Amino acid sequence: MRHFGSACIHLSKSKKIMVKRNPHFGKLSAEYLFLEVKKRKEALLNKQPNAKIISLGIGDTTEPIPKVIAEAMEKVALDLSTKSGYHGYGPYNGLEALREKITEKYYPGLVDKDEIFISDGIKSDMARLQILFGEKVTVAVQDPAYPAYISSSVITGKSGFFDPEQQYVDIVYMPCTAENDFFPDLSKTKRADIIFFCSPNNPTGSVPTHEQLEELVQFAKKNDSIIIFDAAYRVFIKDPNLPKSIYEIDGAKDVAIEFGSFSKYAGFTGIRLGWSVFPKELHFSEGLPVINDWERVLSSCYNGTSIISQMGGIASLENEGEEALNGIIDHYLGNAKILKDCIEKIGWPCFGGDNAPYLWIKVPGKKSWDAFEDILYKTHIVTTPGVGFGPSGEGYIRLSAFGHRADIEEAATRLLKFK
Amino acid sequence: MRHFGSACIHLSKSKKIMVKRNPHFGKLSAEYLFLEVKKRKEALLNKQPNAKIISLGIGDTTEPIPKVIAEAMEKVALDLSTKSGYHGYGPYNGLEALREKITEKYYPGLVDKDEIFISDGIKSDMARLQILFGEKVTVAVQDPAYPAYISSSVITGKSGFFDPEQQYVDIVYMPCTAENDFFPDLSKTKRADIIFFCSPNNPTGSVPTHEQLEELVQFAKKNDSIIIFDAAYRVFIKDPNLPKSIYEIDGAKDVAIEFGSFSKYAGFTGIRLGWSVFPKELHFSEGLPVINDWERVLSSCYNGTSIISQMGGIASLENEGEEALNGIIDHYLGNAKILKDCIEKIGWPCFGGDNAPYLWIKVPGKKSWDAFEDILYKTHIVTTPGVGFGPSGEGYIRLSAFGHRADIEEAATRLLKFK
Repeated sequence: MRHFGSACIHLSKSKKIMVKRNPHFGKLSAEYLFLEVKKRKEALLNKQPNAKIISLGIGDTTEPIPKVIAEAMEKVALDLSTKSGYHGYGPYNGLEALREKITEKYYPGLVDKDEIFISDGIKSDMARLQILFGEKVTVAVQDPAYPAYISSSVITGKSGFFDPEQQYVDIVYMPCTAENDFFPDLSKTKRADIIFFCSPNNPTGSVPTHEQLEELVQFAKKNDSIIIFDAAYRVFIKDPNLPKSIYEIDGAKDVAIEFGSFSKYAGFTGIRLGWSVFPKELHFSEGLPVINDWERVLSSCYNGTSIISQMGGIASLENEGEEALNGIIDHYLGNAKILKDCIEKIGWPCFGGDNAPYLWIKVPGKKSWDAFEDILYKTHIVTTPGVGFGPSGEGYIRLSAFGHRADIEEAATRLLKFK
Repeated sequence: MRHFGSACIHLSKSKKIMVKRNPHFGKLSAEYLFLEVKKRKEALLNKQPNAKIISLGIGDTTEPIPKVIAEAMEKVALDLSTKSGYHGYGPYNGLEALREKITEKYYPGLVDKDEIFISDGIKSDMARLQILFGEKVTVAVQDPAYPAYISSSVITGKSGFFDPEQQYVDIVYMPCTAENDFFPDLSKTKRADIIFFCSPNNPTGSVPTHEQLEELVQFAKKNDSIIIFDAAYRVFIKDPNLPKSIYEIDGAKDVAIEFGSFSKYAGFTGIRLGWSVFPKELHFSEGLPVINDWERVLSSCYNGTSIISQMGGIASLENEGEEALNGIIDHYLGNAKILKDCIEKIGWPCFGGDNAPYLWIKVPGKKSWDAFEDILYKTHIVTTPGVGFGPSGEGYIRLSAFGHRADIEEAATRLLKFK
């Protein structure tokens, strides 16, 4: 017991207080996925300090922000040091000019600027969304899915305990696999109050068709559910036949909230800018508009988004900025193509990457974490184990197409050798 | 019923969905205070469009950011457009250099840099804090207090309904009045799991002594409570005998979380930057460190703080930035002195303003909202009605000392005439 010694001394020295831990935290089954990935990468570096690691793990942007956008942020920073240009608190829902631009570019004729709320990103909005709905609602997620939908739902009391057989009890998992074209079989899906749905999907890279989203909206209407539509990767959709917003579907405003982001579009992962859409048509069963409670959440729990980030957002939606960013999106999709060609040469089943910055790869005969470790130690490439996104991700890994071209080419070379 | 027509049509057209409203939202008794103040200001402007309004209402900074700080933000914005200077996601807990600077300047020998977490401001952190503790904890607040402590507690299920006689049922109100020198009588205070405490206080402008904070820490220890110490206005404390951090009190790390902010210090209300301190000594009754769950909240519900804001924060703590900011703090405290002298000439009881940017004023014979309306219509000065901060604020108004000098002088002239 010697190695427990210091922990015991620590506990006895520090006063135990009577405030109880939030019981929902005890339900969490594992480390946050990307922290675990980071730890394992660091374990490799401890053993092989000279390993030249290429990260295709976490989906983080790598290409510089176009100068015209950086200059817009520079300008506002400088203006803040002048008497005439100084700004204090901004409007809690964001600058009108930015909300107008988002409406015009992304939701023409679909959404009003007053239905848009600017934020510091989807993950923060997701926490506020959990506060909006409280403990009593039930939740459905795609399986696999972005882990924060589940972890934020669990810690805010929307699940039972973790059971290795059925995952989090009371959360509805909607398997999205190669067999169902990565769109859930809604005829077999249990009703839930809120349905998290991500398109283009993280991690599978799939994008549902117009017909599939119509089916989803009808399913939500039939079940009196609310869809939380995460469109963080919408700018990667190149196929003009694929819907980019849930509001392209008739009647979606009655049943759907949408989230958008500048993170992957404009390389703003470190600058923090996103938005939510709460249609005025969306009501709770008591007849009260959901948007009213959202406004109250924001006024109690948020104090607006950096004006510098917002001015950068405006510049990124203006012609020159948008054109430059389209070049960067094409660059990332070019990376995806290089990786996809490589994986197809290897002969592993490979999905996504055409309208999304993620490749979803089945590594034959291997469990996800084994494939992750194998690739990490043999090629020094960091991937993300598919099972970390949900049980249906077992046997898969996710490759991110974010990266400099030379690194992506080097990664492809290493993967081909590894094979 | 004609005027209800369109609402009815709207409800019958839009499908009512079965998701129930979070019942805690139904408990909220009133509009968010500052929205109500804004509405009343707009009502005046509708009647008197040419009224030259001076706002001493919401505590929003007015003086430009010192150039050296703006330039640090400019530089990082420009760097982001270069290959070598581009950054994606930052560390979830903030830049190490910023956490080091905060430790060095504000908590030398008291707090470790790994106990500090950078955020986009206290209000956002407060929402995450509510998620951390969940529904089951009980809450105590100073009365009067910053409204967001209560509203975020109410919507996350920590209170019963609003009862005009006893305010929110299950929330412990700790009256802080002129009679008790604005420090609660702890001998009469009911135990709560978490105690919100703000120093310098918003709205009363009072700062507890070292002895008083010792009493608070002992009270928390005796009751096994956790103190949430909001030090947003600490830089306004000029009296060297007054404590600026709860951690200056022996043993406070066992029982207290602290929040800090760059909003009022560096004029960052529109730039968004703050921090939380979670001491490693602080444990739940089960013996688990609170900091571990906080890390989990952040990894599930937050994605880091704008790197531009953070670099601005670093510059504001370096010598040149700090010196310039001290000049601005002195400017605001000079405003407070002008207003205090004016109120004392009028002869109204007046508190705060010496070590805080707020004056807390008793308007004889008037209720808060009546005094607010009277001053608004007769002097075109916006104040904040004290009762909006809690029942013990009835009869008071709060004046904010943020503002350009000429406006403050003009306000003082108008108030003297009004008298």
